[in-house]
Amino acid sequence: MVEDGTWFPPADTLDRAELEEGETFAPRFNAEGLVPAVAVDADTGETLMLAWMNAEALRRTIDSGEAWYWSRSRNRLWHKGATSGQIQRIAEIRVDCDQDAILLRVRPQRPGACHVGYRSCFFRSLQKTGKGDLRLRFEETEKVAK
Amino acid sequence: MVEDGTWFPPADTLDRAELEEGETFAPRFNAEGLVPAVAVDADTGETLMLAWMNAEALRRTIDSGEAWYWSRSRNRLWHKGATSGQIQRIAEIRVDCDQDAILLRVRPQRPGACHVGYRSCFFRSLQKTGKGDLRLRFEETEKVAK
Repeated sequence: MVEDGTWFPPADTLDRAELEEGETFAPRFNAEGLVPAVAVDADTGETLMLAWMNAEALRRTIDSGEAWYWSRSRNRLWHKGATSGQIQRIAEIRVDCDQDAILLRVRPQRPGACHVGYRSCFFRSLQKTGKGDLRLRFEETEKVAK
Repeated sequence: MVEDGTWFPPADTLDRAELEEGETFAPRFNAEGLVPAVAVDADTGETLMLAWMNAEALRRTIDSGEAWYWSRSRNRLWHKGATSGQIQRIAEIRVDCDQDAILLRVRPQRPGACHVGYRSCFFRSLQKTGKGDLRLRFEETEKVAK
C-alpha cells in the first residue's frame, strides 16, 4: 500500500521497461476500474474461469489469500465461494507483461468454479457441423456442484 | 455464419438457459466489440496470454485454425506470429458459461508467446517483501525468443 492511501502505484508513472520487465506491481485497470483475472487450478493447470477485479477486490485477494472479484452483473464485490463454499485459495498471483491482466493459481476448496455447476466455466467447445454451422459441444457432462 | 452477413447470432436473442447451457455459439462482445481470449498451451496447459478479439478476429481464428486477435494498442487485426513466427495453431476453442470469454487451446509453432521474449506473458509473480511491500518476481528467467 502506498502512503497516499491508494493501494497500487499508478501504472502511468512507470516507463515501459519498468512496466514490462521491472519488479514494480502497477496493475492497469481499464476505464471502468477493472482488470480481467483468469483463475486456473494450481495443481492441474485447468483454466477455471475469467472474471474481473477492481482495486479493492485485488487488494482483498492479496490480503486474504482467497479470490475476490468484482461482479459486473451485481455491481458489487464478490467473495468467490462465500455462499457456495467454492472458495478459491490463492497459491500464486501473476501479472502479465503490460500488467493489464491477472492470473490466479488457485486451490478450489470445493469443486465447481462455475455457477452452472461445472468444474470450469469453459465446459463447452466450438465445433463445426457437417453443414459448416457452428455448435457448442459439452466437454464436461457431469455437474460437480449445484 | 448467419444469413444476414453477420458471423454470429446476437447473444441478446438467447434466453439465459440457451446462452449458458445450450449449443448455440453466441459470443458476447463488449461495448467496444471485443471479447477477452485466454490462450493456453494445449499440451502443457500453461496459461500463455490474455488478448482481445473482435468478431472478425474470432471468425478468422475459426476459419484459419490459427489465432487472430485485435490489437488495442495498434487498433488493428493481429495475426499472432505473422512477423515473429510464433503462430498459435488452434487445438480447441472453448467459450465460458455466459459466453463473454473465449479460451484457446493452442500449439505454439515457436516458443515465446510474449513480445518481451518469455514463454508466457505471465512470467512474473506477486510477492510480499519482509516490510509488507509488493514486488514482482520473475518466474521465467530465460527468454526463449527476442
